[in-house]
Amino acid sequence: MNDVISQLTDTLGEKAVITGASVGDKYKTDWSGLEGLLPSTVVRASSTEEVASILKICNSAKQAVVIQGGMTGISGGAVPQEGEIAISLEKMSGIIEVDVDSMTITAHAGTPLQVVQEAADEAGLFLPLDMGSRGTCTVGGVVATNAGGNQVIRYGATRSLVLGLEAVLPDGTIISSLNKMLKNNAGYDLKHMFIGSEGTLGIVTKAVMRLYPKMTSTQTALCALPDFTSVLKLLKKTFSTLGDGITSFEVMWANYYDEVVETVEQAKSPFIEKYPFYALVEYKSQDRIHDMEQFSSVLFEAIEDGIIADTILAQSLKEADVFWTIRDGIGELLTTMGPVVNTDISVPISQMKAFIEQLEPALYEAFPNVKLRIFGHIGDSNLHVCAGTGSEQDLDAISAMIMGVTGEYKGSVSAEHGIGVLKKKYLHHSRTPEEVALMKTLKSAMDPNGILNSGRVI
Amino acid sequence: MNDVISQLTDTLGEKAVITGASVGDKYKTDWSGLEGLLPSTVVRASSTEEVASILKICNSAKQAVVIQGGMTGISGGAVPQEGEIAISLEKMSGIIEVDVDSMTITAHAGTPLQVVQEAADEAGLFLPLDMGSRGTCTVGGVVATNAGGNQVIRYGATRSLVLGLEAVLPDGTIISSLNKMLKNNAGYDLKHMFIGSEGTLGIVTKAVMRLYPKMTSTQTALCALPDFTSVLKLLKKTFSTLGDGITSFEVMWANYYDEVVETVEQAKSPFIEKYPFYALVEYKSQDRIHDMEQFSSVLFEAIEDGIIADTILAQSLKEADVFWTIRDGIGELLTTMGPVVNTDISVPISQMKAFIEQLEPALYEAFPNVKLRIFGHIGDSNLHVCAGTGSEQDLDAISAMIMGVTGEYKGSVSAEHGIGVLKKKYLHHSRTPEEVALMKTLKSAMDPNGILNSGRVI
Repeated sequence: MNDVISQLTDTLGEKAVITGASVGDKYKTDWSGLEGLLPSTVVRASSTEEVASILKICNSAKQAVVIQGGMTGISGGAVPQEGEIAISLEKMSGIIEVDVDSMTITAHAGTPLQVVQEAADEAGLFLPLDMGSRGTCTVGGVVATNAGGNQVIRYGATRSLVLGLEAVLPDGTIISSLNKMLKNNAGYDLKHMFIGSEGTLGIVTKAVMRLYPKMTSTQTALCALPDFTSVLKLLKKTFSTLGDGITSFEVMWANYYDEVVETVEQAKSPFIEKYPFYALVEYKSQDRIHDMEQFSSVLFEAIEDGIIADTILAQSLKEADVFWTIRDGIGELLTTMGPVVNTDISVPISQMKAFIEQLEPALYEAFPNVKLRIFGHIGDSNLHVCAGTGSEQDLDAISAMIMGVTGEYKGSVSAEHGIGVLKKKYLHHSRTPEEVALMKTLKSAMDPNGILNSGRVI
Repeated sequence: MNDVISQLTDTLGEKAVITGASVGDKYKTDWSGLEGLLPSTVVRASSTEEVASILKICNSAKQAVVIQGGMTGISGGAVPQEGEIAISLEKMSGIIEVDVDSMTITAHAGTPLQVVQEAADEAGLFLPLDMGSRGTCTVGGVVATNAGGNQVIRYGATRSLVLGLEAVLPDGTIISSLNKMLKNNAGYDLKHMFIGSEGTLGIVTKAVMRLYPKMTSTQTALCALPDFTSVLKLLKKTFSTLGDGITSFEVMWANYYDEVVETVEQAKSPFIEKYPFYALVEYKSQDRIHDMEQFSSVLFEAIEDGIIADTILAQSLKEADVFWTIRDGIGELLTTMGPVVNTDISVPISQMKAFIEQLEPALYEAFPNVKLRIFGHIGDSNLHVCAGTGSEQDLDAISAMIMGVTGEYKGSVSAEHGIGVLKKKYLHHSRTPEEVALMKTLKSAMDPNGILNSGRVI
C-alpha cells in the first residue's frame, strides 16, 4: 500500500492525501452506526480527472477503495473495511449550471442535496427530491443509492430525475453522459449502470437532474380509517380523482401512531378518538383555492362513503407540519424503543394486507413480548416495520423473519436504503440466483479487479 | 445451420420452426423499409422456456439470431441479416394480470400495445404510452426500444413505465425481475440492461407496466407564435402555471404547417393569417370545467403578454382531432415530398434556437433547392427535421449534415427511434468513444458469442 500512497501523493500533492493520525473520525462510519475501521489513508479528489488518476493508480495495484460522500447512508456501504483506501468526494462540491429553458441542473458529486434544491428554487424551479439528510447527503450519494424520499409516488426516485451523469470506471476511464434531454435513445442508457449500484461499478462525479415547475399550492390532510381495506380505497379514490397531484400517501398503523402521539412532544393527535389506521395525504398543484375545494370535496365524499372515519384538513402550513411531525416522529420514537429492527421494505400494494396478516401473528408467536411499530409510504409500496423485544439478542431473528415473509410476498428487502453490507444476507429473498449471477457478471466486466466498494451489495 | 434447425425442431416441434419457402414476407423487413433478407428459418416461441431452449441451442452453435416482434421499428433493428435465424415472439401474446390495487399490468412480450391499453382501460386505469403503431407494435418491442410517443413530457418514455420484466440471456438463463413496486433498491436494477438496448443483451419475454388513473378532462389548444423565443416562453408559462398536467407540447415550424394545411385534406388551418410558429398544447387533468377556465386564462394571459399571436381552444374532441391531424399530417406529407430524410433527433431545449439557426442556412447553402419541414415534441427536446432536394443522391449528405450539427449541440442522433442498423454510423456524434467502449464491454459480458441482434446499435 505504501507504494500506492506515494504515487497518490506524487500525483495529487500532499494536501490531498491524509494518512495515519491525521485521518479524522468522520471517515470511519456512516449513519448506519456500523462499527467501521478508521481508514489508513483518505484521498480527497478535487476533480473528475483526479478521481481518474486515483483509480488508475489503485486499479493497477489492485488496491481496494471505498467511496465516501456525505456519509448519511444507513446500510453501511461507505464504511471502510480492512485494507481499503477511502476516496472522499467532499471537495468536489458546487453547482455547474442551472439551465432554465431545459429545466435541468448540473452539479458536482460532492454537492449537498440542499444546495441543489436551493439553486433550483432560486431559478424559479423545483427539484422534487428531498429527505431528512438533505443538508449532508450529496449528489453522488443520492445517485449511487437511488435515494427515494416522500414524493416518489409522483416524481419517482432519484433514477427518474437523473437525465445524465459523468462517472469514472476503475481503470480511470471517464464516462461522460451529461445528457440534458428527456428523449435520447442513442445506444445503451449507461447512466443506469451507476444509479443505484452503490458505487460498485464506477464513481459518479457529476449529475444532470431534471427540474419541475414549482407547486404553488399544498393541501395536507390527516385521515383516520377503520381498516386496511379502507386505506386502499382511499388511495384509489384520491389518486383517481386528484390524479398524480397526490405527492404523498403515508400510512401509520395504530401501533405506531398511538405511541408517537404519546411519546413525542410536538406530535399531538388532532383526533379525540383512536382508530386502527391513519393516512397523511398531501396534494400539490397550482391553484390554491380550487385545489382546496377539490381536495376537501374528495375527502368529504370518502367520509360519506364510509372509507374515512374522520379527517382533518390542515388550515395552514403550520398545521400540516404537525401532521408531518407525527409521521416523522419515528426518529424520536426509536430512541425510546431500546434495541430495535428498523426495516425498509417494499411489498406490492395488493399484497400488503395479507403480508401484515401473516407477519404480525408470526412475530407475536415467536417473540411474545415484541413491540411492533408499522408505517410507510403506501403509495410507493414502501413499508417500515420496526420491531424489538428489548433484547439485543433477538434482533437478528426478528430481522430474518421480516425479510423472509417479505420474500414470500415478492417484496423487496430494501425499498430505498440499498443493500450496502448490512442487507447482503437478505438479498436472496428478493432476487433470484440468476439475477445475482448477472449482477456479478456486470461487476466483473466493469470492475475486473474488484477494487470498487468490494463486498457491498453482492 | 442444419444441425441447429434439427435441434430446434426436435425441441419445439415441427410447427414452431418455419423454413425455406414457407417463410412469409412479413419476416423480411420492418417499417423502416430497409431491404432485408428473407430468413432461411423462423422459430416461433410459445413461452419463456421455449425462448430459453432456442437461445441455448443457438448459443452453443454460435448461431446468430434476429429478434422479431411487431416489425414496426424504423431503424432496421429487426430486419434479418445474412445467416441469421429469426426468433418471432408473435405467439407469446396476452395479458397475464391486471393488479388494480398495485396499479400494474403484466403482459407477454408479443402482446400488441393496444391490447394492453384496452385491458388497462377496462380495469378503470390508464397506460400512458401510445404511438401510431399501437395495433401492431408489441410489448417486447416497445420495451427493447424504449419507445416514446406523445406524452413523454408528463409520463416519461417506456423506461419510466416498466416496473419489472422477464428476459432471457443468450445462454438460456431466465432473468425474472417481475417487480411491481415503485421502490425497490435491492441490488442492481437489471431491467435497464434490457430496456432500450434493442435486443442486443437479452430477449424480453414479459413486462410489468405501471398504470395511472384515467384523466377525465382534456384541453387542447392550437397557438400561433411570432418567433421561437415566444415558443420557449409559452412552454415555460404553461408548464409553470399548469404543472405537469401538460401532456403534450408540440411545435410546428411554418415550413411544415403551411405545407400540411395545403396538402392534407383533413388538416385545415383554423387561422386566417400565417405565422412563423405553431404550438399544439394539450393539458389533461380531472376537473373539466375548472381545467377549461384555467387553461383558457393562461392562454389569454399569453396573448396579453404578446407571447401568442393567436390561439384556438378546441371546443370538442372533434376539433382537437383536427389539430392533431395537422400535427400527424407528416405521414401523408412524406408521400408527396419525394426522396426525403426524416430525422428523429433531440437537442437540449435551451440550444434549439441556435441549433436551427446554424442548421438551416448550412443546409440551404449546401443544397440550394432543399425543402425543409421541421416539427417536434419540443417539451421532450425532440425535433423531427425532414429535408430533401428531390434527389435520392443527396439524402446521405443531408442526413450527415443534420446529424453533425446535432452532435455539435450535444444533441441525440436518435430521440426515440433507436439506433438499429440505420443510425449506427451517426452514433459517434452523440456518444463518446469511452461510452461506446463501455457498451461493447457490456455486450461482451452478457452475450459473449455475439449471437443476439449482432451488428445492431454498436
